[in-house]
Amino acid sequence: MGHTIETNRPLTLGLFGFGAFGKLVARELADHFEITVCDPAYVGAVLEDGRAFAMRDAEETARADIVVLAVPVARIAHVCQQIAPHIRVGALVVDVGSVKTAPMGHMAKHLPRHANILGTHPLFGPQSAKSGIADRKIAICRERGNRQRVTRRFLRSLGLEVIETTAEAHDREAAMVQGLTHLIAKVLNDLGPLPDQMTTVSFDLLREAVGMVKNDPPTVLHAIEVANPYAAEIRNAFFDRAEKIRAQFEAV
Amino acid sequence: MGHTIETNRPLTLGLFGFGAFGKLVARELADHFEITVCDPAYVGAVLEDGRAFAMRDAEETARADIVVLAVPVARIAHVCQQIAPHIRVGALVVDVGSVKTAPMGHMAKHLPRHANILGTHPLFGPQSAKSGIADRKIAICRERGNRQRVTRRFLRSLGLEVIETTAEAHDREAAMVQGLTHLIAKVLNDLGPLPDQMTTVSFDLLREAVGMVKNDPPTVLHAIEVANPYAAEIRNAFFDRAEKIRAQFEAV
Repeated sequence: MGHTIETNRPLTLGLFGFGAFGKLVARELADHFEITVCDPAYVGAVLEDGRAFAMRDAEETARADIVVLAVPVARIAHVCQQIAPHIRVGALVVDVGSVKTAPMGHMAKHLPRHANILGTHPLFGPQSAKSGIADRKIAICRERGNRQRVTRRFLRSLGLEVIETTAEAHDREAAMVQGLTHLIAKVLNDLGPLPDQMTTVSFDLLREAVGMVKNDPPTVLHAIEVANPYAAEIRNAFFDRAEKIRAQFEAV
Repeated sequence: MGHTIETNRPLTLGLFGFGAFGKLVARELADHFEITVCDPAYVGAVLEDGRAFAMRDAEETARADIVVLAVPVARIAHVCQQIAPHIRVGALVVDVGSVKTAPMGHMAKHLPRHANILGTHPLFGPQSAKSGIADRKIAICRERGNRQRVTRRFLRSLGLEVIETTAEAHDREAAMVQGLTHLIAKVLNDLGPLPDQMTTVSFDLLREAVGMVKNDPPTVLHAIEVANPYAAEIRNAFFDRAEKIRAQFEAV
């Protein structure tokens, strides 16, 4: 990554989606690629620090060396169908969704055979990567083509810890990691403002965890709690355990 | 604190209980007082670093300038009855329990009128104060006498953040702070080993919080979940919210 071998021109990156995570992608990759953005919800693509990116329509954005799909998981299939005819031979297409089986299935189904495809899940967000992505984690899953190694090397050069896995293994673990975090955050937020004075260290950690995810948009929650095929199982285990514990307390 | 005005001899401190928290008290206060320990469960009172303390019976231990009750909340009434006849005029008696109304009630009822009494709740434990108590928090509640100011000054000199409150206000807030932390820890521990590789920052914080309290002894859980008069209310609110959220998910 970085430059093409033939021409030494910077690689182009077409970014679909300029929401919270799309902005984070642009912020972290602006120095490495020539980025164009496609997001009908925005008139201009400008970061908080003033850096601006060219906006193009879907067709032009899709004609990049690397295409990053930072759109809601529920939109992946549609976007893939829309961009498929314009993907270059040998291009790399990656998503960044919090769930991997369904989105990677859509990419495999709708994108051309000549596209390299990787599923990725950056295990961080605008809150946890506020001061940078160094030492944060990213999961990558190969779907098609031979770009896994160069991508891994590039991601490591950004300071990321790269976890190579499969869509199924990813979703099973994420159901617990993200499913439980969001469930607990939802219960605690519903209980009203949490104490912040007379607190223990462990409670401060809980509160910090909850604070990190409570502003996640509904699309992220949808991916974690609905699109992940293992989410319901974990959720039910959580609620079942909670009920058993309630019964234990009531028996005291 | 530190030295008596009249003789300049170091103040004596009688420590009841050499469990996990008693050891922490001894470790932090050994340089400030001449400590004797009473705990029938131990033959010798030796810290991990080799420092040893004289062990005495309850009667002798109670005849100190300062008496610290680091015994389970459920034992406070009994210990107070046992030591009451031996408490010196002007001595300061403090407890360190995770709940304040009941223990302070017992101290007020059973200890002599000439004793100064403070309820304290150090908002840390062996895990969260592993590397020291600087910047940790402690709640103190006045029950009887005039030792609140000197105690506050001394605790601050140890680097602690001192929160002055009442038994009722303390218990109401602790029901949420500790009650919720322990409930969530119990549910998560029951779900089995938590992922530790493909994790988000927020999940790592959750796991750290759970890890800090999961080895708390049953006596601490009893104080937090049973002896705290507001614990049941908070617990029910938690379970009720969890059920509502479950219903919301099932309706999707």
